[in-house]
Amino acid sequence: MGLIDPDRFRESFERYSSIGATDREGLHRLALSEADGRVRDEFVADLEELGLSVRVDELGNVFGRRPGTEDLAPVLIGSHLDSQPKGGRYDGQLGVLSALETLRTFEDEGVETERPIEIVNWTNEEGSRFKPALTGSGAYVGAHDVETVLAETDENGTTVEEALEEIGYRGTEPVGPDEVPDSALELHVEQGPALEEADRRIGVVEGVLGMVWLEATVRGDADHAGPSPMHTRSDALVAAADVVTAVRRMAGRLDDDVVTTVGELTVEPNSVNVIPAEATFTVDVRSYDDEVVAGAVDRVEEELRAACGREGTEFELSELWRIPRTEFAPRVADAVEAAAAGSDSPAMRMTSGAGHDASYLAELTDAGMIFVPSVDGRTHNEREFTEWEDAVAGAEVFARTTRRLAGTGDGEGGRR
Amino acid sequence: MGLIDPDRFRESFERYSSIGATDREGLHRLALSEADGRVRDEFVADLEELGLSVRVDELGNVFGRRPGTEDLAPVLIGSHLDSQPKGGRYDGQLGVLSALETLRTFEDEGVETERPIEIVNWTNEEGSRFKPALTGSGAYVGAHDVETVLAETDENGTTVEEALEEIGYRGTEPVGPDEVPDSALELHVEQGPALEEADRRIGVVEGVLGMVWLEATVRGDADHAGPSPMHTRSDALVAAADVVTAVRRMAGRLDDDVVTTVGELTVEPNSVNVIPAEATFTVDVRSYDDEVVAGAVDRVEEELRAACGREGTEFELSELWRIPRTEFAPRVADAVEAAAAGSDSPAMRMTSGAGHDASYLAELTDAGMIFVPSVDGRTHNEREFTEWEDAVAGAEVFARTTRRLAGTGDGEGGRR
Repeated sequence: MGLIDPDRFRESFERYSSIGATDREGLHRLALSEADGRVRDEFVADLEELGLSVRVDELGNVFGRRPGTEDLAPVLIGSHLDSQPKGGRYDGQLGVLSALETLRTFEDEGVETERPIEIVNWTNEEGSRFKPALTGSGAYVGAHDVETVLAETDENGTTVEEALEEIGYRGTEPVGPDEVPDSALELHVEQGPALEEADRRIGVVEGVLGMVWLEATVRGDADHAGPSPMHTRSDALVAAADVVTAVRRMAGRLDDDVVTTVGELTVEPNSVNVIPAEATFTVDVRSYDDEVVAGAVDRVEEELRAACGREGTEFELSELWRIPRTEFAPRVADAVEAAAAGSDSPAMRMTSGAGHDASYLAELTDAGMIFVPSVDGRTHNEREFTEWEDAVAGAEVFARTTRRLAGTGDGEGGRR
Repeated sequence: MGLIDPDRFRESFERYSSIGATDREGLHRLALSEADGRVRDEFVADLEELGLSVRVDELGNVFGRRPGTEDLAPVLIGSHLDSQPKGGRYDGQLGVLSALETLRTFEDEGVETERPIEIVNWTNEEGSRFKPALTGSGAYVGAHDVETVLAETDENGTTVEEALEEIGYRGTEPVGPDEVPDSALELHVEQGPALEEADRRIGVVEGVLGMVWLEATVRGDADHAGPSPMHTRSDALVAAADVVTAVRRMAGRLDDDVVTTVGELTVEPNSVNVIPAEATFTVDVRSYDDEVVAGAVDRVEEELRAACGREGTEFELSELWRIPRTEFAPRVADAVEAAAAGSDSPAMRMTSGAGHDASYLAELTDAGMIFVPSVDGRTHNEREFTEWEDAVAGAEVFARTTRRLAGTGDGEGGRR
């Protein structure tokens, strides 16, 4: 017998999903867009209906606080309501609604917790319209400067500040905790196939892979594709293609969990009858072992050197971004695991390949995450899908874990 | 002792090169631009100074006619004055000025030819601002429809017709020959390294390689680069990169003269942390053997099938354009060879990897070309360069060949 109310949870999910819905059952709700404004209004109304005190900070992060029975630091729960362009309905939203369903359940069931609980919707997790991704949570923990973030512009030159004012979410509260939370918990769809392949419902997330983003530029000579014999060519794309192949292959040699991706590649002058003079591409490398990530960077450089040697081209390699792995708090993972056991949902420990708001919160407090399966691992597109019974199981485990972290005086967690 | 006047030739070259000059000694003189208008004015003034009757047709092709002593079909000589964006000073312009220098020499030396000689500047050879390339010569031989060409637009929506009117070169003469020329001759820079490598000054061009342009689209699945393990991926760029490598390699197995190029490649969604869902690229294959070109198309398809099989992606392959090889008239090549021998310029027979206005003229009459060396084979950029003594040698052979083709009654050619 579950804690939460699956029908109410479903109703909220459908209602929120209708705001910014695409005609293919996806969600197009870019950060601080008009649709993001409307879903925030819905969220605030739901928080107020629960009797929570609502705060909006200068970056539009929305918090609702449910008091505890004792004077203790709060447990922070939530995720994000913005979506990718033509993205899915589960990414982010499912985490916010699991937190909302948790508080509704506590209210309905008269669950009193020792610690206060704060529910949150973070601004601009996706980073599609405004850079950087994880804007709200990153600024909250002090990783981003608020003034810099407010001045960021979208492709039309609109600033974050203007967009916040436009939708009425330029709050007055300073960004950052007035009191450091005791712990933070976020539910999210896995966005990968590991749970599905292992036939588990619940991922107990122990950490987030470390990551590096590289940018390589290969320079050859633009020449007419007709009169230039093969032996005189320095074709930037041919050299780049060799590295794309090598990047694909190197993952298998480095470590089990390593993923390597060339996501961007552009060619100059990009003309059918001109030998490519320049090819610029990115390399994304992730592993839970930061040393492996560092080793992959060396390998990419070696492959570039070999390919450019073969082709008579030159290259530059620069590091766009590097973040070490995030380790979530063992006590939060333990709480998730215990809650899953208590609700009979098959669970497994795993790491996350993607960064999440919880990654930033781990810099501030004991953080953790719960993953639910993504069918075929699909994400960031309209076909993103999670079986509804998995979503319900996740919300149930989320509510139980929150109760453990916030403490009810019955031995299921609480003060540490 | 040469026929032509190298100093006068040089003066014209410098004067014409100053119109649309870039600050790196290149030329930015897009078809029907203001600079193209000014260089045409210069050309028309030079023709009128020679006493030629000047005609401008509806597509802006400019002709000047020097009468012959007999009532015979004319010899058509010339090339194009438009340039690539930030292109070089030699491509096209050297051919027009060799023809101009030839007529000036004939005038100065009192050379009377049996056949009339028509000098021509073809509109929009390059095809950079308006599609298609070889607009003027193609329409002249009936390969393009005049009304369709006039309605073509540049990236600002300006039509060919508007651009012609803007610069005052929307002529009234119908496009096409009132009398089919006896022969056509064009001098051009090689745009490849063959003459330089063989240490020859004059290329006797026997024909133009046959060519095919293919477009391939590979479709995989866009997924988040973090949580998607390597074994579940269908990465469109990885499959495309395999084909780029195969295209580079296949040239060496097909035939000596084959060139194969992937000049364009674009990736969707082209985002650093998203596995490429789509990669679209072109393949340019050229050979003097049309069967070899056809065989290469089959090979590209096989490689696509293999790469997509490996990667779990799908593909489409379409043919954008195919032209069989052009064979120039043996009697024109023979005339060029004899003229080169007479002027002590080391010559060699060769084919052209690139299409030229003369390729279209070969559909109408006996056509031929003279190539002069391009340093390092460089072309279509500001560093395009031809040693001046090579340019002079080329113009000399051009004048001598023209004299042979037009006939002077002294046994050096003439009526066939």
